[in-house]
This record gives sequence, structure tokens and C-alpha cells, in this order.
Amino acid sequence: MCATNIGPIGIFDSGIGGLTVLAAVKKLLPSESIVYLGDTARVPYGTKSANMVARYARECSDFLVGRGVKAIVVACNTASANALPDLTARLSIPVLGVVGPGAKAALAATKNRIIGVIGTLATIASNAYGNALKAQDTSVRVVSQACPLFVPLVEEGWIENEVTDATTKRYLDGMKGEGIDTLILGCTHYPLLSTTIQKHVGDKVKLVDSAETTAYALKTLLEEKDLSAPRKTPPCHRIYVTDLPARFESIAYRFLGDDLPPVTRIDL
Amino acid sequence: MCATNIGPIGIFDSGIGGLTVLAAVKKLLPSESIVYLGDTARVPYGTKSANMVARYARECSDFLVGRGVKAIVVACNTASANALPDLTARLSIPVLGVVGPGAKAALAATKNRIIGVIGTLATIASNAYGNALKAQDTSVRVVSQACPLFVPLVEEGWIENEVTDATTKRYLDGMKGEGIDTLILGCTHYPLLSTTIQKHVGDKVKLVDSAETTAYALKTLLEEKDLSAPRKTPPCHRIYVTDLPARFESIAYRFLGDDLPPVTRIDL
Repeated sequence: MCATNIGPIGIFDSGIGGLTVLAAVKKLLPSESIVYLGDTARVPYGTKSANMVARYARECSDFLVGRGVKAIVVACNTASANALPDLTARLSIPVLGVVGPGAKAALAATKNRIIGVIGTLATIASNAYGNALKAQDTSVRVVSQACPLFVPLVEEGWIENEVTDATTKRYLDGMKGEGIDTLILGCTHYPLLSTTIQKHVGDKVKLVDSAETTAYALKTLLEEKDLSAPRKTPPCHRIYVTDLPARFESIAYRFLGDDLPPVTRIDL
Repeated sequence: MCATNIGPIGIFDSGIGGLTVLAAVKKLLPSESIVYLGDTARVPYGTKSANMVARYARECSDFLVGRGVKAIVVACNTASANALPDLTARLSIPVLGVVGPGAKAALAATKNRIIGVIGTLATIASNAYGNALKAQDTSVRVVSQACPLFVPLVEEGWIENEVTDATTKRYLDGMKGEGIDTLILGCTHYPLLSTTIQKHVGDKVKLVDSAETTAYALKTLLEEKDLSAPRKTPPCHRIYVTDLPARFESIAYRFLGDDLPPVTRIDL
């Protein structure tokens, strides 16, 4: 298979969180068509083993390659943290994760070189953000915290209430004492909790959301590889899910508003 | 395949919650060997569609049949609620769910015929408990509430803290006003939250946990079908999981204490 500028961008996630990346890519690259895959039959990835996440990521990217994508964005932090080298080695098209762009944005934002990272159990266990940060700046100090309840809270729609407050306090109180000035939201669900998170860590801590920086990294990648769609191409977006679309659609509006492309169920 | 009293009992669950059923069966039927399957690669079932749950339940029961089990207990409420008729029709060995025994125990406990049911989204959406209760007593009134955050709270180990309190209050305050005198814990994770749940609904509400009543129903079923293991047979228990055992084992002690049989990973 030969990469050409004809063909859509493939984006996959364990479920719905990657829609924040889809939204950022749509906004920055309005001529690009997007095929999004949410593996809703096996969500979440964040509590599964690294081996299992890598296997699921291979199956997702194989599906996208079969749809003729010219590049793949791994919009799931857990899959980016655990499967990116494997996917890059296996595929002949470019593959971009969210960890690298997120780490880069955090390094640009920090002044005191103390950076916090929050994510799923699998993302934090992989230490992918720590490694990516240290690879670019060995002097940085990284403080990590897994926050397994944040994803179910977002999916329940409890964005701002006393449960979300108490959960955030439990997870982040320890981190506040470490003097971080930057906090990476290392899971695509977490930007929906940013008001509550900001309130707990204080206004002086800069929150870094990898969705937007990933869209910029994708733009650069496409330009470098001469893969950008011709300007003013009318884009066509498609969403695929592995479980029935009903629940996906009912939660998707929290991420995309009413602007939801057609959603189709497939088997992996 | 012909059902005989030689062979173990098969028990399956989406993950770890069914260990409450395993513990109850071990205690009541100490001569029976048990093969337990936890589908940890695809957990949870409670947020998936009914079709997907039914497919996963077929795959789990096919695995257990392949291990020579003489009967299957569907220890997962979500799978019991959505897949039991399908499994019963497909398999030639007896299949027992947790919904029927739970409903029967609730009807035995209630005095005012107002029964509450809490469970996952998929269990509550199926109305399986409502149907099972009404089938036995048309005069009963059923009040249901999905509690999607209870499973992640148990898996996080937050059994009694301010987050669990606030979550329980949100879910159960409406139910308190309905005058229930009995509450079915319609998910195998929920018995671990029973202290907090009891505190919120008050001492006068009887909590019904289907694990123990399911073990009694299994005993009756085995006796009726002449499938009981000979007395004083030394039992042999095995646990299989579909993701790596490490996380399963680290949570399993909350359900079984130190008494954990060997755990092996398999593919479905």
C-alpha cells in the first residue's frame, strides 16, 4: 500500500473519548476526510493489560487501513502509550499518537520543569509520558497519578457535581503538594472535567490537552509527507463503532455537540 | 454431550464480580469442583448492548462446555438479564442465572410488596428483574435505578469513603421516597458496597444479594437432575481470565480473601 494524499485520515480510540481529537482535526484541517473507529464493544482499554491493548490497537488500525486511510492517529492515550512502536513498525503509512504531542506542549508550557500527568491505570503504568518528557528534557520532574474513576464519571455525565469534586480532590491533593505548574490531561475524556480539575489544582497550573496539539502535529506530518488533501476538498466523515451505535450517539453529543457524522456498527 | 455428575460446575462473569457467587457455591457445595471464567478482556458488560452481551455470553458458555462442565451458572447479572433464554435454548446442560433466584429471595423478604432493584445500565434496561418479580406476583411494585459508577468504585477499592457516600446518595435518594422495604443488589459487585447502601436506605430496608440464593438454587437444581458430586469428593477449582491475571488477582482478594485458586489466561 502506498501513501497518497487521496484518502481519509484514520482516527481510533477505545470508545468515545477520541472524538475530542476528531473535533480538533476537523477544525484545523477542514479539507481532510476522517474515518473514526470507536472500539465500544471492548471499551475501556485503560484497565486492560499492555499486551491486550496492543492487540486491540492492531485490530483497530488494520480495520482503518482496510478503509484506505493515508495516516492513522491513535487518539486513545492508553493505546498510544502501549502500542505506538508496534503499530509504527507494522504499518507502511504514518502513525501518530497523542503522547508525543502532549509531552511537547507540556514542555513548552512549564516554567519550573515540574509537570504532572494524569491518565488511566494502563497509561500511567506504561510511564509513556514520563519517558517522552525525559527524552526531550532530562531536567524535568514528572509526577504521575492514575485516575480510574474519571472516565466513568464523564460517561455518566457527572461533569460538575459533589461526586466529581470529591473524586478530583482524592486524586489530585497529593499532586498539589509537589509544586507542579503544568498538568497533562493524559486521557481524551479528561478535558470534559477541566473546569473541576482547574478548580482543584488552582489557576496557576496550566492544563495541557493533547487533542489540539495532536491536530497540529498531524498537520505538520501531512505537510512533511506531502499527504495533505487539496484545499477546498469537500470532506466526508464516517464513524464506526464495534457495539451498537445507540449509547455511543447518546454520549457523543457531549464531545461533538449536534455535529455527529453517520455512525455504523462493524465487527473487528 | 450428556450431563453427568462427573465434571465441575461452570461459572462465568464479565470479570471479577462473579467471585461472590463462586464463594457462595464453594461454601454450600464443598464437594463440587468449579471452573470460573472472568471475561476480563472485555469487561464491563453493563455498558454494552444486549446483543453484544448475548454474544459474549455464548462465547463464555462455549468455553465452559469445552471444559466438560455439567451445569453453568451465569454469575453476571447483566448476562443473566440479557442472555439466559438464548443460552438455555442452545445448551443441553442446565443453565442457571442470578436474576431468578434474586427475584425469588426478594419476594420472600418483602412485606409491603414494593421492591427496589439496582444494577448496571444493561441490567436495568432489560427489566429482567421487573419481569421475573411480576411473573411470580403481579401485585408487586418495582422501582429500578441504574448505578453505573458502583462497579468502578468497587474496582478502585473505594468501598467506604466520601465519594462512595455522595454517589450512593445521588443514586438512591429518589428510591427512598418510593417506600421500598426490599432492595435487590442486582450486580455481583454491589454486595461489597452493602454497608454504605444500607446506611443510605435505612435499616428497615432488607438488602437481597443474589449470590447466596443462587447457590441454593444450584443445589436444588443439581439434586433434581441427579448431578450432585458424590459427598466428600475432594474438589478442584480453576479460574480462567481473558486478559492477563495480574490485575484480576490484585482485586480478587477483595472478594475471596487469600483463598484464590490458580488463575490462567485464555483466548475466547
